[in-house]
Amino acid sequence: MTAATTGFGARLSDAVAARESQVVVGIDPDPARLWPAAQEHAEARRHLAESISSAEAAAGAPHDPQRVETAVATLAHCLALIDAAAPACVAAKPQLAFFERLGFPGVLALERVCDHARSAGLLVLADAKRGDIASTATAYADGLFGGLGADAITANPLMGRDSLEPLLARARATQGGVFMLVRTSNPGAADVLDLELATGEALWERLAQLAAELGQGRPLTDVGAVTGATAPEHLARMRELMPRTPFLLPGIGAQGGSVEALAPAFEPGRAAGLVTASRSIANAHEQHGGDPAGAARAEAERLRKAAWNLA
Amino acid sequence: MTAATTGFGARLSDAVAARESQVVVGIDPDPARLWPAAQEHAEARRHLAESISSAEAAAGAPHDPQRVETAVATLAHCLALIDAAAPACVAAKPQLAFFERLGFPGVLALERVCDHARSAGLLVLADAKRGDIASTATAYADGLFGGLGADAITANPLMGRDSLEPLLARARATQGGVFMLVRTSNPGAADVLDLELATGEALWERLAQLAAELGQGRPLTDVGAVTGATAPEHLARMRELMPRTPFLLPGIGAQGGSVEALAPAFEPGRAAGLVTASRSIANAHEQHGGDPAGAARAEAERLRKAAWNLA
Repeated sequence: MTAATTGFGARLSDAVAARESQVVVGIDPDPARLWPAAQEHAEARRHLAESISSAEAAAGAPHDPQRVETAVATLAHCLALIDAAAPACVAAKPQLAFFERLGFPGVLALERVCDHARSAGLLVLADAKRGDIASTATAYADGLFGGLGADAITANPLMGRDSLEPLLARARATQGGVFMLVRTSNPGAADVLDLELATGEALWERLAQLAAELGQGRPLTDVGAVTGATAPEHLARMRELMPRTPFLLPGIGAQGGSVEALAPAFEPGRAAGLVTASRSIANAHEQHGGDPAGAARAEAERLRKAAWNLA
Repeated sequence: MTAATTGFGARLSDAVAARESQVVVGIDPDPARLWPAAQEHAEARRHLAESISSAEAAAGAPHDPQRVETAVATLAHCLALIDAAAPACVAAKPQLAFFERLGFPGVLALERVCDHARSAGLLVLADAKRGDIASTATAYADGLFGGLGADAITANPLMGRDSLEPLLARARATQGGVFMLVRTSNPGAADVLDLELATGEALWERLAQLAAELGQGRPLTDVGAVTGATAPEHLARMRELMPRTPFLLPGIGAQGGSVEALAPAFEPGRAAGLVTASRSIANAHEQHGGDPAGAARAEAERLRKAAWNLA
């Protein structure tokens, strides 16, 4: 095995090929839309809730039974969602905010969700968007790659190279990856990421160059890019600036993007364009009917086929 | 009471006046440098460790006794640090990475640290540097202002206005504040924040304008700015662009800044320049001798006087 065939990019390519999928299921649990599956395993859930409450009490923390119950129900929901979607996916992308919102019981749930995704054969992409000075970035890297066991994370490059390097060093130690924000899919991306620099480039083009420069490995690099699918006219330019960079493409489904506009992402190979979907999978039953798990599985499979046939 | 005298800026001004301090004690616990005070209350600590382990077991998580013990020792350290430094401070600024690194037991510790800081009469500034699409930003805001009960948070503006607005809306609901990254103190700030735009400004100047535009309130606004004290030549320009914005000034002590260079920050009043120190307070005994608590208290008081006499 040579250096050219290891690293996150190679792992990702292998995983996409093995699973015949570029789909990343986003795990963004909304307490108001948890699946009824959350009602199963009542005994195990009660035991978990009691144990969390006892940790609260031992810490002298105010008891918040609703928060504990929501975290437990969220965990059950996420495990069921992973079971349903995993066969059509290559990775799971938990959005940390939706767990952190529930405090420490939510973070306990997050840890179990990451373990479960791994057991289901998925890569774990922790959607954290962290970015901070080096000593802090090192602590974040420990928590995300160490504690959570993430295979890759998202990161925010605003604070520059020395805020990214500790994340990347830790990622490389376990053949993990870092997906940098380059051009996101929200309307506010126009406020900062699209600003024109004195050199004539947009800021996002400069960030794309930074991603290409920091990444190592073949056929794909270990620094990926978060590239908003709602601006498909940018994808060809992104590919030009980042020829071997895996793109994480949000904006499918709930955010209004479409799979068909994504072709330039897949130029270096299928694994170079990961297609993320969260609400469109988890809430597929609201759109298409059926039981939540069956509808989620069908929607993930529909996306898998659509993306696979493009590349 | 009128709108002009409420909001985070007014709360902050009142707090600084009441405590006669602009010092923010940063809580960045390093597991390798915890105070021996962490050995006290052995019985309570054992109970807490057992309860956390039982929550791990109930969740089916792998048991990690060292992580649990580190989180419990970290909590004890942070409570002692707050007790020591609080009399000379106006706020505590826990850096979330140093708690998240320890997984859910660390987040439980973080929640107790925030409660304890509040009990000691301090404002709580959660140093989170979050920035994400609106639905995710709303979840972060719930966790930080709701769950943690933060009075203010730090935020990353790279994704633009719609990533900041949910944080700000939630902050305003509880008269809280949002400190935006404008120009940070790390060397990497030159890579992105210092980039020259087509208009001739630096990117950080544009972010400064955004902070000024988003902020509301008198005498100070409820949108603050994280402004690196290692670039003191920028402070006058920052004050010009953000005449009523509270500045959070890192870079004192461990990062190499000096209190004396900060005068422009204090122009609109003492509360307009918050002086942050973390390692220089927590590790003062390594520098100056004495017991950790006494040395921390003395160093916080030294900083308090130095800043107070400047304004």
